[in-house]
Amino acid sequence: MSLQRLSSLKPYQTETTPCPVKMSSNENPFELSQLLKQKIMDAISRVPFGRYPDPTSTRLKNIIARRFDIQPDQIVLGNGSDELIQLMTIIVADPHSSVMYPTPTFPMYQVASDVVGRKRLEIPLNNSFDLDLSMVSQEEINNVGIAFFARPNNPTGNSFSLDVIQHVADQGIFTVIDEAYIDFSDRGDCLSMALHSDHIVILRTLSKIGLAGIRLGILIARSDIAQKIDAARMPFNITYPSQIIAETVLTEGVQEIETQISTIKCERQRLFDALKKYPNVSVIASDANFLFMKIDNGNQVHQQLIERGILVRNMSKYASLNNYLRVSIGTPQENALFLEKFNEIYLINQS
Amino acid sequence: MSLQRLSSLKPYQTETTPCPVKMSSNENPFELSQLLKQKIMDAISRVPFGRYPDPTSTRLKNIIARRFDIQPDQIVLGNGSDELIQLMTIIVADPHSSVMYPTPTFPMYQVASDVVGRKRLEIPLNNSFDLDLSMVSQEEINNVGIAFFARPNNPTGNSFSLDVIQHVADQGIFTVIDEAYIDFSDRGDCLSMALHSDHIVILRTLSKIGLAGIRLGILIARSDIAQKIDAARMPFNITYPSQIIAETVLTEGVQEIETQISTIKCERQRLFDALKKYPNVSVIASDANFLFMKIDNGNQVHQQLIERGILVRNMSKYASLNNYLRVSIGTPQENALFLEKFNEIYLINQS
Repeated sequence: MSLQRLSSLKPYQTETTPCPVKMSSNENPFELSQLLKQKIMDAISRVPFGRYPDPTSTRLKNIIARRFDIQPDQIVLGNGSDELIQLMTIIVADPHSSVMYPTPTFPMYQVASDVVGRKRLEIPLNNSFDLDLSMVSQEEINNVGIAFFARPNNPTGNSFSLDVIQHVADQGIFTVIDEAYIDFSDRGDCLSMALHSDHIVILRTLSKIGLAGIRLGILIARSDIAQKIDAARMPFNITYPSQIIAETVLTEGVQEIETQISTIKCERQRLFDALKKYPNVSVIASDANFLFMKIDNGNQVHQQLIERGILVRNMSKYASLNNYLRVSIGTPQENALFLEKFNEIYLINQS
Repeated sequence: MSLQRLSSLKPYQTETTPCPVKMSSNENPFELSQLLKQKIMDAISRVPFGRYPDPTSTRLKNIIARRFDIQPDQIVLGNGSDELIQLMTIIVADPHSSVMYPTPTFPMYQVASDVVGRKRLEIPLNNSFDLDLSMVSQEEINNVGIAFFARPNNPTGNSFSLDVIQHVADQGIFTVIDEAYIDFSDRGDCLSMALHSDHIVILRTLSKIGLAGIRLGILIARSDIAQKIDAARMPFNITYPSQIIAETVLTEGVQEIETQISTIKCERQRLFDALKKYPNVSVIASDANFLFMKIDNGNQVHQQLIERGILVRNMSKYASLNNYLRVSIGTPQENALFLEKFNEIYLINQS
């Protein structure tokens, strides 16, 4: 059968249990202001829905280029980073080479490898959730065609040591550094590293800073590299509304989003401080907009939170992450509610 | 170099010469009514932009299922048909098998084959622009993993004989029948053929009937086939605004769009009748929302139309289509202007 290969696919699935408080998908919990929403609506009202969008997203790329102080031709836009990850997996290197990434990490690297039909080289993170290549042979490394590193990493929230990433890149392996969560990190990015290499690219996204709904992934690379990748992109991959909304928010809404990011970082500290006081919890410092923690009876606590209207991500579907939860930072009100319910559950389970 | 394969890619390019009258991309030339636009705006104003869209597009699929009198699990949605064409090219059949399609046709089959890195088997259409397999050997056919047929075909506008498509499918070849233009045809569709086969699927789109801007491609297949394909789709490929806009238009705007389609079909007849009177023109009957014609000095006429503010598609970049133009049906006013300017150019070129 023509679709035989697909029978073994593990599709990406998210928890969609409806809950009043959703702290499970690392979204920005704040609504856009009414003023900014109005500006978006004004812009959208002028969209000729019957016409194809600009295939080059020229206006949007110019705005993004100014934001990152780069050139528009150093940018490739995707329908979310997902599309860019899949595109890289399709076009980079020999199809018989393998796709390397650490585990646990963002599931899309595995999904893309499987859909495209490429071999995977999964590298377990060490006890500090950092990269450790000592478990893979040089022979395995030699067969790697493309490597993905999420930095900060999801779901662990920490930032991998740059020297290991550099070590991989130094061997000529095409290296994708996925900086989806970089806006919440104080450790510096890899933008300059990418712009000075012919085989390092970075990924950014608007999904974590307030625009998950419009699906805008951003690849940044040296111009010649970006242009080759851009030539392989589907021509009309960014919808007209998404272009217009991103243009509006990245011009009129930057201050608003920066403020939200600051608040999320403050709230992360508050949540972290509160959680680490629990003797049954082990929570690690996060450079992202979520906290990653080990907790006794994780499945039970996850369910108890749902019963109280709060959805967090239960990581226990990954064998190595039994009893781990990932908690996206919510609004101050949501975080307060989370801590209240968390404490309530703690007291119940202790008794 | 890791991106070596890409250097030979022919990216899809559209003519983007700005012209007041755009009859080049087979779009629906009519604006949505103010009432329908207002309903769209109302729906969009309630979108939480910070949240991921429904990964299953459940509401939208239910609406589409009712429209086609099928089940929601017989549907796969794509970011335009482009994404679905690329996905099929990735996942169907052995990667060493070839991708078959006639020429000339919609360029995306070639683009997807090249990006994914699969062999192409291009079958030139016969003198009536119909399918003709007599030029390919059985050995070549035996190596085909997936076949694409646009019906009605773009850019020729005619509908291929179904018996040749059926002959291909009868050999077990996975067959995609792209019905992007079916709304403008009176020849019947292949929906039932697809729903009764484990290796025939059809593609539809909202791009030709008024919503090119939101990029919504629709694959329809037997449930078990659709579900396997759906599992390979990127989880959040349909943006939140696109879901909301499509839901609104396919519930509140159906009558409006049906009326526009009728007008376009009437206008097509009017344009056809007018054009076929010119001795230097050969125009073929169309089942789509455009006309395909051969004209003396095509490049020159194309340029002369641009100078008069009208953009049509010059097909001469394809060697076999020298002196061919493709003219999308516009609004009655646009078509009148086109005919006026066309006549003016004819008189100038005759003198």
